Amino acid sequence: MAYRSGRHFLQIPGPTNVPDRILRAIDRPTIDHRGPEFAQLTRDLIAGLKEVFQTSGLVVIYPSSGSGAWEAALVNTLSPGDRILAFDHGFFAANWSKVAARMGLAVEVVPGDWRRGVDPAVVEEKLSRDREHRYKAVLVVHNETSTGVTSRLPEIREAMDRARHPALLMVDTVSSLGSIDYRHDEWGVDVTVSGSQKGLMLPPGLSFNAIGPRALEASKAAKLPRSYWSWDDMLEFNEAGFFPYTPATNLLFGLREALAMLKEEGLPQVFARHRRLATAARRAVAAWGLELVSADPREHSDTVSAVFTPEGVDADRIRRIILERFDMSLGAGLGKLKGKVFRIGHLGHFNDLMLAGTLCGVEMGLKAAGVPIAASGVQAALDFLSSNPAPGAD
Amino acid sequence: MAYRSGRHFLQIPGPTNVPDRILRAIDRPTIDHRGPEFAQLTRDLIAGLKEVFQTSGLVVIYPSSGSGAWEAALVNTLSPGDRILAFDHGFFAANWSKVAARMGLAVEVVPGDWRRGVDPAVVEEKLSRDREHRYKAVLVVHNETSTGVTSRLPEIREAMDRARHPALLMVDTVSSLGSIDYRHDEWGVDVTVSGSQKGLMLPPGLSFNAIGPRALEASKAAKLPRSYWSWDDMLEFNEAGFFPYTPATNLLFGLREALAMLKEEGLPQVFARHRRLATAARRAVAAWGLELVSADPREHSDTVSAVFTPEGVDADRIRRIILERFDMSLGAGLGKLKGKVFRIGHLGHFNDLMLAGTLCGVEMGLKAAGVPIAASGVQAALDFLSSNPAPGAD
Amino acid sequence: MAYRSGRHFLQIPGPTNVPDRILRAIDRPTIDHRGPEFAQLTRDLIAGLKEVFQTSGLVVIYPSSGSGAWEAALVNTLSPGDRILAFDHGFFAANWSKVAARMGLAVEVVPGDWRRGVDPAVVEEKLSRDREHRYKAVLVVHNETSTGVTSRLPEIREAMDRARHPALLMVDTVSSLGSIDYRHDEWGVDVTVSGSQKGLMLPPGLSFNAIGPRALEASKAAKLPRSYWSWDDMLEFNEAGFFPYTPATNLLFGLREALAMLKEEGLPQVFARHRRLATAARRAVAAWGLELVSADPREHSDTVSAVFTPEGVDADRIRRIILERFDMSLGAGLGKLKGKVFRIGHLGHFNDLMLAGTLCGVEMGLKAAGVPIAASGVQAALDFLSSNPAPGAD
Amino acid sequence: MAYRSGRHFLQIPGPTNVPDRILRAIDRPTIDHRGPEFAQLTRDLIAGLKEVFQTSGLVVIYPSSGSGAWEAALVNTLSPGDRILAFDHGFFAANWSKVAARMGLAVEVVPGDWRRGVDPAVVEEKLSRDREHRYKAVLVVHNETSTGVTSRLPEIREAMDRARHPALLMVDTVSSLGSIDYRHDEWGVDVTVSGSQKGLMLPPGLSFNAIGPRALEASKAAKLPRSYWSWDDMLEFNEAGFFPYTPATNLLFGLREALAMLKEEGLPQVFARHRRLATAARRAVAAWGLELVSADPREHSDTVSAVFTPEGVDADRIRRIILERFDMSLGAGLGKLKGKVFRIGHLGHFNDLMLAGTLCGVEMGLKAAGVPIAASGVQAALDFLSSNPAPGAD
Repeated sequence: MAYRSGRHFLQIPGPTNVPDRILRAIDRPTIDHRGPEFAQLTRDLIAGLKEVFQTSGLVVIYPSSGSGAWEAALVNTLSPGDRILAFDHGFFAANWSKVAARMGLAVEVVPGDWRRGVDPAVVEEKLSRDREHRYKAVLVVHNETSTGVTSRLPEIREAMDRARHPALLMVDTVSSLGSIDYRHDEWGVDVTVSGSQKGLMLPPGLSFNAIGPRALEASKAAKLPRSYWSWDDMLEFNEAGFFPYTPATNLLFGLREALAMLKEEGLPQVFARHRRLATAARRAVAAWGLELVSADPREHSDTVSAVFTPEGVDADRIRRIILERFDMSLGAGLGKLKGKVFRIGHLGHFNDLMLAGTLCGVEMGLKAAGVPIAASGVQAALDFLSSNPAPGAD
Repeated sequence: MAYRSGRHFLQIPGPTNVPDRILRAIDRPTIDHRGPEFAQLTRDLIAGLKEVFQTSGLVVIYPSSGSGAWEAALVNTLSPGDRILAFDHGFFAANWSKVAARMGLAVEVVPGDWRRGVDPAVVEEKLSRDREHRYKAVLVVHNETSTGVTSRLPEIREAMDRARHPALLMVDTVSSLGSIDYRHDEWGVDVTVSGSQKGLMLPPGLSFNAIGPRALEASKAAKLPRSYWSWDDMLEFNEAGFFPYTPATNLLFGLREALAMLKEEGLPQVFARHRRLATAARRAVAAWGLELVSADPREHSDTVSAVFTPEGVDADRIRRIILERFDMSLGAGLGKLKGKVFRIGHLGHFNDLMLAGTLCGVEMGLKAAGVPIAASGVQAALDFLSSNPAPGAD
Repeated sequence: MAYRSGRHFLQIPGPTNVPDRILRAIDRPTIDHRGPEFAQLTRDLIAGLKEVFQTSGLVVIYPSSGSGAWEAALVNTLSPGDRILAFDHGFFAANWSKVAARMGLAVEVVPGDWRRGVDPAVVEEKLSRDREHRYKAVLVVHNETSTGVTSRLPEIREAMDRARHPALLMVDTVSSLGSIDYRHDEWGVDVTVSGSQKGLMLPPGLSFNAIGPRALEASKAAKLPRSYWSWDDMLEFNEAGFFPYTPATNLLFGLREALAMLKEEGLPQVFARHRRLATAARRAVAAWGLELVSADPREHSDTVSAVFTPEGVDADRIRRIILERFDMSLGAGLGKLKGKVFRIGHLGHFNDLMLAGTLCGVEMGLKAAGVPIAASGVQAALDFLSSNPAPGAD
Repeated sequence: MAYRSGRHFLQIPGPTNVPDRILRAIDRPTIDHRGPEFAQLTRDLIAGLKEVFQTSGLVVIYPSSGSGAWEAALVNTLSPGDRILAFDHGFFAANWSKVAARMGLAVEVVPGDWRRGVDPAVVEEKLSRDREHRYKAVLVVHNETSTGVTSRLPEIREAMDRARHPALLMVDTVSSLGSIDYRHDEWGVDVTVSGSQKGLMLPPGLSFNAIGPRALEASKAAKLPRSYWSWDDMLEFNEAGFFPYTPATNLLFGLREALAMLKEEGLPQVFARHRRLATAARRAVAAWGLELVSADPREHSDTVSAVFTPEGVDADRIRRIILERFDMSLGAGLGKLKGKVFRIGHLGHFNDLMLAGTLCGVEMGLKAAGVPIAASGVQAALDFLSSNPAPGAD
C-alpha cells in the first residue's frame, strides 16, 4: 500500500472514531485499582453509565468485548437447558443465539430475512402460545449492526406485556447505546448488553450489563457455571468502588471522558444529531439508486446504513477500491450478506463534514468500481443538511 | 488529599508503571479490526508473544483481565466434574481454585502456609498415588503476587514426570512473564495463563493462554460450556489475522510496543535486571530487620517482595501513611495476610533510581509509622547496587 | 457556541492539521539539551532539513515563529541603512518589508495588486538599472499565503542572473516548503526562510534559515545588531549537536517525525499530491462561479486558494457561518483583502476525503450565506479527483 | 549505550520533568490562531501569568527560548549606546551582558566570583555615584542557574531606592519563577524576563516579559531596532486575544495546564515545597562533605544546587558515570565552573521520592567515581524530610 497522507476515514459501524479527548484521557499512568482515587472513579463511572442506559438500576462493567457481555447476560440469569426465544434478524442476533446454544441453553430461533427487525406480532404470538412459560428469556438486538435495522423495542415490550409472559427481555445495544434513544427502565428491559466502541466513542475492550430487578432476582437461582461474568462478585466489589479482578484501568479513564462528552452534548442532542446525519446518508443512498438492507422505514438505523450493491457487483471489491484510493474503511457484508452489501457507519464522534467526506468517498468509489449511479448522493445529502441545519448551529 | 506534585510512585506489584512509549502507542486512532493492517498486527503480536512465552506452540489473546485467562484455561480443556489438583499457596492460587470450583470442577486443594511455593515432593506424592489418573489437571501459580514466592516449576515438572502422570500442567504467570525466566515448552507446561499489566508493562485489559499440544488435544473432548473463551474459534480466526469478536485494538497497539521493548532489552537482560533489583530490595528488607513472607531463599520472587510488619503493627496504616506522605502506592496484604504485610512491586519498567526512591519512601514511611528499624535498608540496597553494577552500564 | 461533535476541520492555510504521529512524538518527556541523545537528534534534524530545502548548505533552526526567521535573514546579512528591494505582492510580503524597515534598512517596495507574484521582468529591470549595486538584497515570498499566488522563482533567479546583480536573494517559503517544489541550491537562493506549521505539519514554534555561501560570507561583514538570531553562534554550537540557548526540544521531537513522514511519502509524491488536490479545489471554485485572487494560472498556489466573494458579500460572514454550522475554520482575507476573500488551506497532512469534506462545507456555507453559486463545486472537484486518481492508489 | 529500562531522571536545573497533564494538553490538534476559541485562550493565559509574576501590569508571551526574552527586555526599552549596569555573578548573568553588548549597549559589568549574588551595597554605591543617571538599566539574574545562588532582590530594590536612581531594574527569573517567591510589582521590577521550561514545568519554547509602567513608558522612546520582540504590536494584538505573528499554539495549551496546576497547588505551597526539598538536598551535600558554590546561606537557591567536586576530580566524569550507570542527567559546570561542579536540579514537578531517587543516584555515582564521601547524604536528606513532613501530607 502506498504512503497515506491525511486522516484515515474509519467509517465502519464501529469501532468508531475515538475523539482525541478520549485517547488522551486513556494516555496517562495507570493507577492503583485498590486505592481511594480508583474508588471514586468507579462510582462516577457507574453513575454516569446509568444515565446513558436510562436506568436507576444496576450497571456492571467488564474488561471484555461486547460478546462477553452477551455471555454474561445469559450465564447470570439462566440454567442449563433453559429455553430461550431468539430471532434470526441479523448476523449479531444469530451469533448471540449461537453463544446461548454453546452455553447449554435450548434456543428457539425464529427465522428472518435480515431486512426487518424483530416483529412484535411474532413475539406476542410466540409468547401467548407458551402457556407453561417455558421460554425463560427473549433475546433482541436493538440495532443490528450487520443490517442497519433498529427493532421497535417499545412495541416488543408491549407485545410481551400483552402476552403476560414472564420471560426476561434481554437486549443488545452495542451499536445503539449513546447514539439512538434507548430506555432500559421505561421499556422494561431486564438485561441490556452493550460495549464501548460505538456510541460511547471508546476503543474496544469494555462491555456492560445493565441489570433490572427481575434479572437480579433470576440470578440467584441461575445454575449456569459462571465466575468471570458473575454479577454477585462484581456488584459486591463495586459497592466499595472496586472490582473482583483487575479492571481495564486506562479504558476506564477513557470512559469517564466519554461520559463527560455525552453529558456536555446532552443525550437528546446526541440522538438528534445521529438522526439528522443518518437521514442525510439515506438521502444519498436513495439518490444513487441503491437499496438499503433495511426494508421498513420505521426501522432504518441511525447509526449504520447497510447498502446492497447492484446484482452481480461484488461489494467487497468496492470496499477495497475505496480503501485503496480514498483511505476509507467501510463495513463488509457479514454472513449471508457477504459480498452483497457495504455498510456505512455514521455514528459516534461524527459531524456534517465527516459525513460529507464519507459520502464523497463512497460516491467516487462506486464510480471507480463502475457501478452506475442514478444521481449524486452527495448532492442529495448536502441538500438535506443545508435545509435542515443542526439546531444551535447559529 | 492535598495537591500532589511530581510523579506518583506506583509500586504495587502490578499494574506496573506503563512506559510512555507504550501509552503513546495506545494513544492513536483505532483501526478496522477486519482490515489488512490489522491482520499484520495480529500476526506480529502472536509471533512476539511466542518468544516471550518461550514456546513454539499457540498463543491466544483475550480482551479480558488475567482472571479471564484462568477461566479460559479450564473451560477449554476440562469437563464438568473433572478432578483437579490445586495448592493453597497464596491468594491468587486460592482464587484460581475457586474459579475452578465455580465452573463445576472437583478441586482438591493441598493446604499451605503461603510462605512456600508448591512443593514438588507433594506433587509427586499426590500424582504417584493417583493410579487411575483421576486428576485431569494440576494448577500452579508460578509467582504468587500475594506472597512474593516463586514456585520451582522445573522441579514440579520433573516430579510430574517421575510420577508418570498425564494430568495437564496449568501455570499462572501473571506476575512473572516478562520479568522472571519462564519456559513454556522446555518446562512442559500445557496451558500458561498470563496478563498484560505486569512484566509486559501494559495497562490491564489483555490476557493470554499459551497452549501446548496436549492441551489442544484435550480441548477437543472438553465439555465445559464455553463461547467467549473458546480456543477453537480464536485459533481459526487468528490464522487469518483476525479475532472472532472485536479485539481491544488500542491495547494491542500497546502490546506491539511492549514486545518491541522486551526485544530491544533482550529477555535474558530483562530477567537479570529484575534479579538484581529484587536482590537489592531484599537487602533493604533484611537491613530493616523485617521478614519476608517468602521463607525459602530459593523461592524469593524477583518481581514482588511481601514484607511482614512487626507483630501488632497494622500494615495498612503504614501503606496509608506512605500514600499520603510520599504519594507512593504499595500492595496490601491479601486474604489471610491482610493488615500483616505490605508488598513492594519491583517489576516492569523499572530501574535503580526508581527502586532507590521506592525504598526511601518505605523507610521514611516505617519511621513515620513508628516502626523501629534495625538499620538503613536504603543504605544496604545502595551498597548492593553499587557493588553489583548493571552489566553494560559503562 | 453549541457542543461540537466530530473533528474540527482546520482548513486555514496553516497552521495545518498536525498528524497524530507528530503530536505523539512531541508528547514525550523533555531530554537534556546538552546530552549525547540530543546531539544525535540535532544532527539528524539538520541532515533531514537539508533534503527538504534541497540544499547541501547550512540550515539553522530557531525556537520562534516564522517572523523571527524573517528577521534572522536580515540581521545576519545586512547593515543599517542597506537598501533592499521588496515587492508588495501580498500581506506577508508587505509585512516582511515592514520588518526590514523596522530593523533600519532602506526598503524600496515595488507596488503590486496582490493578484500576481513578483514579476521577473520588473526584477530584471530594477536590478539592471542599479549599476552601483546599491540593492543589497531582494526579498521574495515564494508562496503568498494571503493571496494564493506562487511566484515563479526560477524565472526570478534568471532575471537576477541576466542583470548580473550581486544582491542576495532571500525567499520566504513558509507556506510552500514541504508542499510545493522548492530548490534552495538549484535556484541560487541565498537565504531561505521557513516555518514549522504548514507543509512540515508541525505546530507553530520553530522557524528556519537555509543559508547559502554568499549569505554566510555577507554575515561576516553585516552590522545590524544581532544576538538571538546570530548564525555564527548557532552554527558553532550546531557543529557539536547543540544550541547556543535552550532549544524547543519537544517540537524538535515532532520535527524528526515530520521529516520521517516526508521521506516515507517522498518529496516528489508530496508535491504531486498537493498539485492534484489544489487542482480539484480550483475546479470547485470555478464551478461555483467564484474568482480566485490569483490571476495568472502559472502562479496558482498548490497550498492555498484565496477566493473572492461576490461584490457586496462579506467574506467574514461566510467564514463565521461555516465555523458555526460546520465547525470548519477557513482563512480570512488579510490586509486590503479583508472581508473580500476567504482562503481555503489545502496543504500538509491532507487527502481526497478531507478535501471533499472541506469543499462540501464551503459549498453549504455559501448557500447558507445566500451566495448564489453557478454549479456544484463539490461535483466538479470529485469529477477531477475521479478522473485523476492518485498514483499508486491501486 | 545499553537499553534503558524505567524512567530517565532528568535532574538538570531545567528543562524540568514535564508533568503528563501538560504533555497531554500539548498533544491535541492545533487550532486557528485567529479564531474565537484562541482569543479566549490568550486572555486566560495572560491573566494566569500575571498571578504567577505577582503583577497587575502587562505580560507578553514570545515563541522563543528565554534568551529571546532577554533581548526583548533590552530592545524595547533602550537606545543604541545606552549605558547599563550588569554583574558577573554567573554564567547566565554574563551571557545576558553579552547580549546587551551585541545589541549595541554600553555594558558595565561588575566583576564577581560567582559564589555570591548581586551585592545590594555595590548596587547602591554604583548608582549613588552616578549623579547624571547615565545608567539606564540594571540587569540582575534572580536565581543564577549556573551557581545555585539567588540574589536578594528586595534588598537590591531598596538599594536602588536609597540611591534615588531612575535606572530600570530588569530581572531574569528563568529558574525562579513558579518555584521561588518572586514579586514583580512589590519589588518594583521594571521588566521581568522568564521562560517556560523550569518552574512552569513546560517544554522549552515560550518566554515572557512582565512589563512595569516605567518600562512601558521607556519603550516609547527606545531606539534599538526591534520587530519580532516589539511590545507595542504584541500588546495591541493581545488586547483582542491575538498575536502579531503565529504563536506557538500547542505550547500555549500546555501553559494553560501549567497555570492550572500552579493554581491548584497554590503559589505559597509551591514555594514551600521547593524550599523543603532544596533544604533536604543541601543536607545531603553537607553530609557528603562537599561544598556548594553558593557561599552565603541567605542566597542558597531552592531550585538548583551547584556542588564543587573535590580538587582534581572531574565533575563531568562523575556526571557521565551517573548518566551511564543510573540514567540520570545532572547539570554540568558552565563557563569557568566547567569540570569543577555538577548541578542538581530540584525544581518543577518534583516530590520527596523523586528527590530521594536523585540523591541516591548522586551518592552511588560519587562512590563509583571514587570520590570519598564523609557520610551518607541520602540519610541526611531522608532524616530532614522525615522530621519536616510536608504540610497537609496527613
